[in-house]
Amino acid sequence: MSGWVAVAGLGPGDEALVTDEVRAAIAGATDIVGYIPYVARIAPRDGLTLHPTDNRVELDRANHALDMAAEGRRVTVVSSGDPGVFAMASALFEALEGRPDPDAFDIRILPGITAMLAAAARLGAPLGHDFCAINLSDNLKPWALIEKRLRLAAEAGFAMAFYNPRSRSRPHSFARVLEILREGCGDETLISFARAVTTAEEALVTVTLAEATPDMADMRTMVIVGNADTRRVGRWVYTPRRVG
Amino acid sequence: MSGWVAVAGLGPGDEALVTDEVRAAIAGATDIVGYIPYVARIAPRDGLTLHPTDNRVELDRANHALDMAAEGRRVTVVSSGDPGVFAMASALFEALEGRPDPDAFDIRILPGITAMLAAAARLGAPLGHDFCAINLSDNLKPWALIEKRLRLAAEAGFAMAFYNPRSRSRPHSFARVLEILREGCGDETLISFARAVTTAEEALVTVTLAEATPDMADMRTMVIVGNADTRRVGRWVYTPRRVG
Repeated sequence: MSGWVAVAGLGPGDEALVTDEVRAAIAGATDIVGYIPYVARIAPRDGLTLHPTDNRVELDRANHALDMAAEGRRVTVVSSGDPGVFAMASALFEALEGRPDPDAFDIRILPGITAMLAAAARLGAPLGHDFCAINLSDNLKPWALIEKRLRLAAEAGFAMAFYNPRSRSRPHSFARVLEILREGCGDETLISFARAVTTAEEALVTVTLAEATPDMADMRTMVIVGNADTRRVGRWVYTPRRVG
Repeated sequence: MSGWVAVAGLGPGDEALVTDEVRAAIAGATDIVGYIPYVARIAPRDGLTLHPTDNRVELDRANHALDMAAEGRRVTVVSSGDPGVFAMASALFEALEGRPDPDAFDIRILPGITAMLAAAARLGAPLGHDFCAINLSDNLKPWALIEKRLRLAAEAGFAMAFYNPRSRSRPHSFARVLEILREGCGDETLISFARAVTTAEEALVTVTLAEATPDMADMRTMVIVGNADTRRVGRWVYTPRRVG
């Protein structure tokens, strides 16, 4: 087939954080597929069809992209951040599993600046030592597994980055996360709330776990928890490279 | 002071993965500081002084950058990948702790495409679910802590990305890592070795933990271990979004 699918990361919001590789995949596309606010970042032009779709239809969107590629179209699926981190790349491969000849498709995954690293850069270097990334949504996994991972990550001394810390459908779960973290990491560990990083609405707040309250996070917030060595220097937060 | 320090991520190697933000910091600099092979990526020009230095002198390099900024120079410290992930950002803040007025410095951390996300994109989407990033070098932490983190990460069911899997100074440690992973994750878990991603020397290999041997990794290899659900589809490796 002559069509292709590129799954491209648009980064956290600032156009100066989009790579040339991603720009080329957008410039060469006949069709752009993605969640409404991400497709809204693509400039319309002749010969380009935009296909914005709602949240939580990732698998439909991936199948639509594969169908169009099979018809010879050049399709770029846009994600915010990096497509491989809690975004569209896994959904595309799930859709690919349903096809008789997966390797007949011309697919490229194009990395982007993921939210946790954009947030870490604005805060300083809170992820400068071993860390983990956890999606706090229980949409696709049991809540008990999230609690287990938080406890083990605390025991391991990982810094932690949380995607999707809160949503309207689970208003009380982030309060439970903070309880588990206070038990596992101690009251004095630093936690940062980085909202809408690299956009005009950016807001950065760092407090101790004792001071943290659930309302400090919303759907646009990246939450980063330090390890026992994470500390402030001036207006910055960082985790030293050395431990032990 | 009129000088500044930017700590900039050059990405994994391909120039199409360098952000405009990083390019602007290089174009606006009077001085470039960094490890020899990263400074070699910067084009010389009139008015720009290159300061390449050897490995393992990160703190000296950071202090040199702060000293030059205090003298009014515009200094870009270059890292490969993302400066906040096992790279120069933490070293800069360590150096900043030694200064009487940290907030007098104009500092910016500029994110880049880190090796694990570039490798993941080339492989498919092995980090498409909760994951952790561990530096396997025991240069700055005790080996026992690395073993503890590997065991807890396996128990948590994290996918894992390993930076610095092997070096000449610890030729046997990666064999021990593979033993711990086989015990904790089982023989059938997939492990990928992604060498020199996005460069002309790129090489990608995926095997089961039972098939993995220490010589599959070297200093230029990013190692990614899947979770129990990670699987192949065609030539790709991916971790589904859904568990449980």
